[in-house]
Amino acid sequence: MNKLQYTFSGKTTTWYLDADFGYLAKLVDKDHTVLITDEHLFAAHQKRFGGWSTIVINAGEQYKVQATVDSIIEQLIELGADRKTTLIGVGGGVVTDITGYVAAIYMRGLAFGFVPTSLLAMVDASVGGKNGIDVGVYKNMVGTIRQPQFLLYDYAMLKSLPKEEWVNGFAEIIKHAAIKDAALFRELEKNKLTTYQKDKAALAKLIKRNVGIKAKVVEKDEFERGDRRLLNFGHTLGHAIENLYELSHGQAISIGMVAASMISEEFTDFKETDRVIGALKRYGLPTLAAFNAKEVINVLRMDKKKVKESMNYVLLNKIGQGVVRTIPLAELEKLVQSIITAR
Amino acid sequence: MNKLQYTFSGKTTTWYLDADFGYLAKLVDKDHTVLITDEHLFAAHQKRFGGWSTIVINAGEQYKVQATVDSIIEQLIELGADRKTTLIGVGGGVVTDITGYVAAIYMRGLAFGFVPTSLLAMVDASVGGKNGIDVGVYKNMVGTIRQPQFLLYDYAMLKSLPKEEWVNGFAEIIKHAAIKDAALFRELEKNKLTTYQKDKAALAKLIKRNVGIKAKVVEKDEFERGDRRLLNFGHTLGHAIENLYELSHGQAISIGMVAASMISEEFTDFKETDRVIGALKRYGLPTLAAFNAKEVINVLRMDKKKVKESMNYVLLNKIGQGVVRTIPLAELEKLVQSIITAR
Repeated sequence: MNKLQYTFSGKTTTWYLDADFGYLAKLVDKDHTVLITDEHLFAAHQKRFGGWSTIVINAGEQYKVQATVDSIIEQLIELGADRKTTLIGVGGGVVTDITGYVAAIYMRGLAFGFVPTSLLAMVDASVGGKNGIDVGVYKNMVGTIRQPQFLLYDYAMLKSLPKEEWVNGFAEIIKHAAIKDAALFRELEKNKLTTYQKDKAALAKLIKRNVGIKAKVVEKDEFERGDRRLLNFGHTLGHAIENLYELSHGQAISIGMVAASMISEEFTDFKETDRVIGALKRYGLPTLAAFNAKEVINVLRMDKKKVKESMNYVLLNKIGQGVVRTIPLAELEKLVQSIITAR
Repeated sequence: MNKLQYTFSGKTTTWYLDADFGYLAKLVDKDHTVLITDEHLFAAHQKRFGGWSTIVINAGEQYKVQATVDSIIEQLIELGADRKTTLIGVGGGVVTDITGYVAAIYMRGLAFGFVPTSLLAMVDASVGGKNGIDVGVYKNMVGTIRQPQFLLYDYAMLKSLPKEEWVNGFAEIIKHAAIKDAALFRELEKNKLTTYQKDKAALAKLIKRNVGIKAKVVEKDEFERGDRRLLNFGHTLGHAIENLYELSHGQAISIGMVAASMISEEFTDFKETDRVIGALKRYGLPTLAAFNAKEVINVLRMDKKKVKESMNYVLLNKIGQGVVRTIPLAELEKLVQSIITAR
């Protein structure tokens, strides 16, 4: 096992990397803990859940909605959960987002932890304390920012991860490299997906490095007034097309990163859109998609990063160096239109 | 106008007491502000709402539920509310509780302010940052703690307040006096409701004193680990019977305070239950009610102040001095049973 610690708003969050699921029993009191997971994970890991109070939700982003929150709250009441109860989300980003959100609002706040089970959740979704649910086509429209007490990563749980889920994770890994870590970007350009699937040590190192990239950014700017905004690279257009066209998160932000790279070439000295496209393709990610510009722009107008009539958009100065620029909505709309037309 | 300021988690909240509703326009940018109020207030004060984006909700505690939150969020999306939008709750405790809650979760948090329009909201509900909604019979089961930027009190809005609402406010005023301010308790024992309804200066002084009592407690203990718990005097049993028997909040906690005074006589040197009963009666509040002990105890078991098999219960050492005692649930159940039987 490998411990990492970062401090947010004066409180320490501990990562237990390369740990075993069973170690959970040493971290919390089983009698005052409720696990939250989804139906697939519950079926796949029944033994692991033995002896734990567990709430099982439907699997899939379409269930990251208020109705699921209502159902969890009802079950917590039935289970007699009180302020001393710890909630633990065992699953991918949907499970950890919902668990963090319920923990933020149930009885005005319970302690919580995560056992992320997908690569995406390990390197990104479970890190940084953002939680929430979708409202219609608007992703994460409702939520809070609140940090888990701990995260436990059991790499054995990645064994059953389908390939498309590995690909999703690499979208965020490439994002981290693009905005913060040129050396990692070069490493990714040399390797490929199977490198990390086959070499457990390389994978463990990669996950740890990505937790570090994100946790350090969040540690300095938990409430996203500065540098944390860089983590939205590819996510503005990405979120808009993700729910509109039922893309996976990785696919959507991959296309979003290509668009943001192209927009960067208009606003900064960035000239390496080809390298971004190359890396994304290398890990099985799509780099373009047909979509309706008007529809996308309507959703963009409701993006949380919109401020009055402008949008804070994340661009690249160069590989490994992201930057936020304020772009007037009207100009952004023209650019999105031209990117779509150009392809 | 009369300004008060208190600081919570390093941020200052400003009270504009004895102010005019119109002053709101000086505090916020009308174009990036949304007011939330209920149908009765909107009808009664139409002129005041002119020129403001306003969301109107159904009036009454039965609407302090998730469905109302869903509807407000839908309307905020339609209005194009973004992170720079300020929400202002204009109304009683239901409106301020819901507004604070929506402001905590919409886009992971907007700035917000309150214009409390009932005596209860002015002296209690709008002060201290607790927000939330009910779930079934469980009051405030879901919510957060987050402070408004400002509160504006326009005493002219109290003119149309029905008598039962005045009485509700005095239940919390008597509570504040009982746990923290023996001199205020003596003042209340000398005066009566009409004293404050007729004498605007006496009322203004009373409201300011009560804001001060509560805000100072919350300033020292925002997240309710210590002294803030005293503010729950009368609320444990009170909340249980409020929703079960459709009592007003004032009626419910009045009965709760009598029960807590009687329980105090078992655990502390307190011997003045008669004075508590006298003061409550003086302001038109009920001091006993027929209820089903078993039903009440079942709801008590889900109270947020329950911790594992005990309950943190607020008692009195003497008038003006509250104290928290941990009482095992089993013992509490017997006491509740005997209080009911005794009457």
